[in-house]
Amino acid sequence: MTDFARTRALFHIPEGVIYLDGNSLGPLPIAAAERVSNMLTAEWGELLIRGWNTAGWFVQPRKLGDRIGRLIGAEQGSVMVGDTLSIKVYQALASALDLNPGRRIVLSDSGNFPSDLYMAQGLIASLGRGHELKIVAPEAVEDAIDGSVAAILLTEVDYRTGRLHDMKRLTAKAHAAGALAIWDLAHSAGALEVDVAGANADFAVGCTYKYLNAGPGAPAFIYVAPRHAATARPALSGWMGHAAPFAFDLDYRAGSGIERMRVGTPPVIAMAALDAALDAWEGVSLADVRQQSIRLADLFVELVEAGCPDLALASPRDGSVRGSQVSFRHPQGYAIMQALITRGVIGDFRAPDAIRFGFTPLYIGEAEVRGAARILAEIIGGRLWDEPRFRQKALVT
Amino acid sequence: MTDFARTRALFHIPEGVIYLDGNSLGPLPIAAAERVSNMLTAEWGELLIRGWNTAGWFVQPRKLGDRIGRLIGAEQGSVMVGDTLSIKVYQALASALDLNPGRRIVLSDSGNFPSDLYMAQGLIASLGRGHELKIVAPEAVEDAIDGSVAAILLTEVDYRTGRLHDMKRLTAKAHAAGALAIWDLAHSAGALEVDVAGANADFAVGCTYKYLNAGPGAPAFIYVAPRHAATARPALSGWMGHAAPFAFDLDYRAGSGIERMRVGTPPVIAMAALDAALDAWEGVSLADVRQQSIRLADLFVELVEAGCPDLALASPRDGSVRGSQVSFRHPQGYAIMQALITRGVIGDFRAPDAIRFGFTPLYIGEAEVRGAARILAEIIGGRLWDEPRFRQKALVT
Repeated sequence: MTDFARTRALFHIPEGVIYLDGNSLGPLPIAAAERVSNMLTAEWGELLIRGWNTAGWFVQPRKLGDRIGRLIGAEQGSVMVGDTLSIKVYQALASALDLNPGRRIVLSDSGNFPSDLYMAQGLIASLGRGHELKIVAPEAVEDAIDGSVAAILLTEVDYRTGRLHDMKRLTAKAHAAGALAIWDLAHSAGALEVDVAGANADFAVGCTYKYLNAGPGAPAFIYVAPRHAATARPALSGWMGHAAPFAFDLDYRAGSGIERMRVGTPPVIAMAALDAALDAWEGVSLADVRQQSIRLADLFVELVEAGCPDLALASPRDGSVRGSQVSFRHPQGYAIMQALITRGVIGDFRAPDAIRFGFTPLYIGEAEVRGAARILAEIIGGRLWDEPRFRQKALVT
Repeated sequence: MTDFARTRALFHIPEGVIYLDGNSLGPLPIAAAERVSNMLTAEWGELLIRGWNTAGWFVQPRKLGDRIGRLIGAEQGSVMVGDTLSIKVYQALASALDLNPGRRIVLSDSGNFPSDLYMAQGLIASLGRGHELKIVAPEAVEDAIDGSVAAILLTEVDYRTGRLHDMKRLTAKAHAAGALAIWDLAHSAGALEVDVAGANADFAVGCTYKYLNAGPGAPAFIYVAPRHAATARPALSGWMGHAAPFAFDLDYRAGSGIERMRVGTPPVIAMAALDAALDAWEGVSLADVRQQSIRLADLFVELVEAGCPDLALASPRDGSVRGSQVSFRHPQGYAIMQALITRGVIGDFRAPDAIRFGFTPLYIGEAEVRGAARILAEIIGGRLWDEPRFRQKALVT
């Protein structure tokens, strides 16, 4: 059984804060501050350019990829770290369309994170070959998979509601129809028992700043199924993905396997934080994390529904088809979330009307859930959100 | 007059090291360690998700862009920080080809950094519209600019030899021929008196880990001339470049002006290091930097030619057409550089046979130049490089 008291001690949670927004930005792993400091002073400061070899900066993207790979059921050597999630979506989709040249439909859903859709739109415009991004409702995806679909591009967990797609079933359906499957694991990696190899996914992508706690703007990752690794064409063909980066050839030759998904110079400082953050997963069972997350979220739903009849549950009630987050709708959702934050309960708001709470057992337990539900009930019951200051929109919501 | 004794004190140079590789990776600005530490503990640790607004993480890419803009002669609001140089090359070239749809030739030269060529090759393959990357010798570029060229894609300073292109003249020639001009400033920003606006460049890109000293894998930047900012199509159309990122629309609408060149979530930790690194430029005149760099490099050439007749100068002798680095050729260049590094003189090697030295007045002076030339002469004169251990190739050379 995972020792969540031990994992909780690995994170810094500010005094007086109940942090239910790890689904947007995980908290600081205490070890990350020292690891990054060491990277700056002992590695960059003392080794200078020699750090690429002697401190292993050059091979770090793949090493970190393998560490993440163990959390998502990936084969060794099939995950690469770098860039941002949007960039990795572009690489995955470009590769998939290239591997399925006879088809023109990219199938996604309205619950996908918008940046995935935007990157697809940008790629399709660049390709100029008549591809079409077809966006259906999440529940209509399965029926929309047919012989016209080149690739499905889906986020496993809906960022708004936590609704969960069945990765294995939809991937099987896609394959049966001759389509490839690309999965965005932004809200899955570190939250669910993901098994990309078992689900037979073709590509997967994800970020590391949510449940993997690597810090704001931490690098992303891409998984390429080994069966595609030698043939996938990295549309973003940078020198680090070249077969011989330091030969300085004038022509691109893709590196072997997953190496070709590297693009430019890797973000060494950010990788130090990610490496430290991944240490928190040693000895942690994702089955335990998942079970505890469902338990905490179920408790929260129960307490909120009892205490706040004005709020409408926007997430699946059944924890088994819900990710690690719960959302409620209210016309004054934005102001309510601002009032909550003022009281130290940090979740977030997603337009137009959803307040969202994440349940991350590594550092959140039953006491926080009960505390958050109590404060939410006080705010709703007393209309404490009804102050002008709570309606002032910030840049980032 | 710039006070180089003051700037030198801002950097950490290890005891016993003569660092002539700032053209590859600048040294640690002492303030960066504290700034990053503060970002981790006081910002990420205490503010958590609130840091996007209250610590200004969200607007930081543009603020940093403006700080860099002042070093390259860019108009206010025309530079954006993010991603890697390779990614920014892709965005710039994709935009340029889109703005010049009737042309099919991308003109570059064999002295361009290979990743720029690779990214162009990847883009051209994606576009599938018959574009061609034409690579000529650096000295043949000017004559190759004709009515078939959509865009010239050039690095101002040759990474191997330091040979300098005339940005203003080649841009004017390109415009007269109906082509756009994209400049890679990797070896220019922080080294030369760059004036992108004065040169009338259409796009420029660069990295911040060389002369701007922001650390290994630090984020890149892109400049878009104001005349193109409202029409350039960002092929990599991520949510951060959307007109309303937090409206979560299903369709992409490009943000206003340079904002559209943002892609994914910005690298907040790395931006803290970059912000601290840019402080070193306060009170520094780039004219002084340039003059002093030429003086130091000229002195190095003079001393090396006197002490090492076996080495052949691979860089222009005339400092005014040379960037901030000097290269020499020798069949045993790799082993010579390894021997130098063992003696504390850090430059680098570029295949097949060039040893390369950068002269960065912010933290390098005449004493280092004399010391490096003396040690190099000892190694060459005594054949001290002729040991098996110096021939073992590292991953990164």
